[in-house]
Amino acid sequence: MSKVTSLLGAISEVGRDASRGGYSRPVYSTAELDLRSWFIAEAERRGLAVNTDRNGIIWAWYGPEQDDSLVTGSHLDSVPGGGAFDGPLGVAAALAAVDELRARGVEPGRNGKRSLAVTVFPEEEGSRFGIACLGSRLLTGAIDADKARNLKDAEGNSFAELSARNGLSAERLGADPEGLARIGQFIELHVEQGRGLIELDSPVAVAGSILGHGRWKFTISGQGNHAGTTLMTDRADPMVAAAQIILSAQKVAAAQSEARATVGRLQPIPGGTNVIASRVELWLDVRHPDDAVTAAVVQKIHGQAQIAAANEGCTVTLTEESLSPTTGFDQGLAAELQRLLPAAPVLDSGAGHDAGILASYLPAGMLFIRNPTGISHSPEEAVEDRDADSAAALLADVLQGLL
Amino acid sequence: MSKVTSLLGAISEVGRDASRGGYSRPVYSTAELDLRSWFIAEAERRGLAVNTDRNGIIWAWYGPEQDDSLVTGSHLDSVPGGGAFDGPLGVAAALAAVDELRARGVEPGRNGKRSLAVTVFPEEEGSRFGIACLGSRLLTGAIDADKARNLKDAEGNSFAELSARNGLSAERLGADPEGLARIGQFIELHVEQGRGLIELDSPVAVAGSILGHGRWKFTISGQGNHAGTTLMTDRADPMVAAAQIILSAQKVAAAQSEARATVGRLQPIPGGTNVIASRVELWLDVRHPDDAVTAAVVQKIHGQAQIAAANEGCTVTLTEESLSPTTGFDQGLAAELQRLLPAAPVLDSGAGHDAGILASYLPAGMLFIRNPTGISHSPEEAVEDRDADSAAALLADVLQGLL
Repeated sequence: MSKVTSLLGAISEVGRDASRGGYSRPVYSTAELDLRSWFIAEAERRGLAVNTDRNGIIWAWYGPEQDDSLVTGSHLDSVPGGGAFDGPLGVAAALAAVDELRARGVEPGRNGKRSLAVTVFPEEEGSRFGIACLGSRLLTGAIDADKARNLKDAEGNSFAELSARNGLSAERLGADPEGLARIGQFIELHVEQGRGLIELDSPVAVAGSILGHGRWKFTISGQGNHAGTTLMTDRADPMVAAAQIILSAQKVAAAQSEARATVGRLQPIPGGTNVIASRVELWLDVRHPDDAVTAAVVQKIHGQAQIAAANEGCTVTLTEESLSPTTGFDQGLAAELQRLLPAAPVLDSGAGHDAGILASYLPAGMLFIRNPTGISHSPEEAVEDRDADSAAALLADVLQGLL
Repeated sequence: MSKVTSLLGAISEVGRDASRGGYSRPVYSTAELDLRSWFIAEAERRGLAVNTDRNGIIWAWYGPEQDDSLVTGSHLDSVPGGGAFDGPLGVAAALAAVDELRARGVEPGRNGKRSLAVTVFPEEEGSRFGIACLGSRLLTGAIDADKARNLKDAEGNSFAELSARNGLSAERLGADPEGLARIGQFIELHVEQGRGLIELDSPVAVAGSILGHGRWKFTISGQGNHAGTTLMTDRADPMVAAAQIILSAQKVAAAQSEARATVGRLQPIPGGTNVIASRVELWLDVRHPDDAVTAAVVQKIHGQAQIAAANEGCTVTLTEESLSPTTGFDQGLAAELQRLLPAAPVLDSGAGHDAGILASYLPAGMLFIRNPTGISHSPEEAVEDRDADSAAALLADVLQGLL
């Protein structure tokens, strides 16, 4: 049986980011395509039947492709400068769990057992096209296909163009009821992205819920001009308004129990040292267990942004890029997972996942694996070797119990 | 005689920036190389002898190449998303002035007249390698050659590598006393980058001084982490500290008469929407007529930055990238320019120029041409056609008088 650590070791050089540290594996980059090829080769080596569906989701079948199968998987794309485990841990654990099931003599798709599929979802992070979980949103129809086709990356490539360049038909992107019907239950194993399991002193947890989250883009427009010739009193500098929005986001979120607000991406345009920016684009990530509070936090930041912009002689617009309500996982499935892993506590997730999108359409559940640094979306994200290798056995226990 | 407007018309599509608007013509980009080729062809068409020196400065000689010549010129590179005139106006006016001198029967380098050279300086804006007026700093030795060789652009190319790729010898970059000795006097014609000539209601001015200016880079380091799983109280977010630095820069400069402080360039790293940045790089441009005040403004902003960073659990470092003192132009030459252009007022410049670097080594002067928007480093920078075309005649008057 392949160990999870050796599977991850085989891809440990793919997409390394020398300047940011960690890995940059945006969807359909060379790095992510290499990872997709690696997954397909590993799945075929295990005798699984692999196909890539019309939304770019890879399916590897153990047993015949049929409705109401048990499906597990995660993603291979990363945030810029991300860690080694966010996504790949769940994919590698699924491959190793296939080995484990086979070693145990469990045969999905035979003798009354359901088939098992391992899936890889594209653009889970939204680091290239701005919308997280794009693959599962397309599959379920949670995103309008035209909206997805028209999403642009930083170089101006549309998602439709890039999908076509990668062998898909742009016209066929979108809701896929036949694909969705294949999934009877979905299980995603994922590295924990906070300190929950450190505090609970447990190597694994069953997910309770996913925190509601959304992304908003502020565009602040001012007057581009020369940094030397333009007096401070003659300026309409959108960077000053942007700075106030960053501080508003922090203050508004800090004042609201359990809220999180982050500005991690900001682009001054044109971006010259000796140039007062004409425009600043700024992305805001807000999360709270209560969706009404998330909306109120964004509204409050927007209100303060409008005042800050007006004070600087600038204007500001706000666009919602994505919004996912707080999602509870299927309680029956969660109870079954707890029965199969009696030592595992229940842990809510502050991070979004494809399983969270699927959870609105079918019974989905997640397992979280302990992260000894508690840090994620960073090169410092970690999983201990013994936890990584035992993840496959834990996942196999769950899959065997559910098949 | 070629009109300035038709010369500029010939390059009006080179380096257009569809996303920022205006032009992006960084040094040694395809666009800037196309402009260099255009200049060489236009100079040779006029019978000038063209050579590119060891620092990448192009010289076009009218009369024999010899010491103590009269030299005029400007630059062809731009800030990102810059205007059409900042640099190219002075180059086009010089070419058209050559035509005008020839039409008037003036023959530089003959009958006791000095030779005339038209020069194009590389990387005047510092938009690619961070240091403005890099060509004239290299020529004069105002920058250490090793420092220049090791400058890196955003893609990690060193200035030495890029110079070598463009036919120069990296070892020969640096102070060029023979080249400098060629220049007896230097005249740069340039679009005005503020509202001075609008207020003075004049199409042209003679430069009095160049405002002291410098560039500093702040690097703020915090803890990269996940935007969803990390509570507001558990963060060390360098974007929050960066926002406070932007506001400090504005407040400190606004409180100091005649000071200007600008943050027009900022880079969160890694730069993902759902990622708390681990590091922010932020560039500060500060200018004031009194160099001691410039230093005090930077020191005050730095002090506030250290407090802001510490409050966020971050650290901050400050690096001076370049510093140019306030430079008065040669008074004798300025008086002669005023004698030759009696209607032209004297105007100080808030913007830096190669003529300002040369002014510390030899008699240099500048002419500013009216900009009806008063805006520069922006697509909105403008020069009226009649002012552009009369610029060549004004420059020819000056050159003829000085030869």
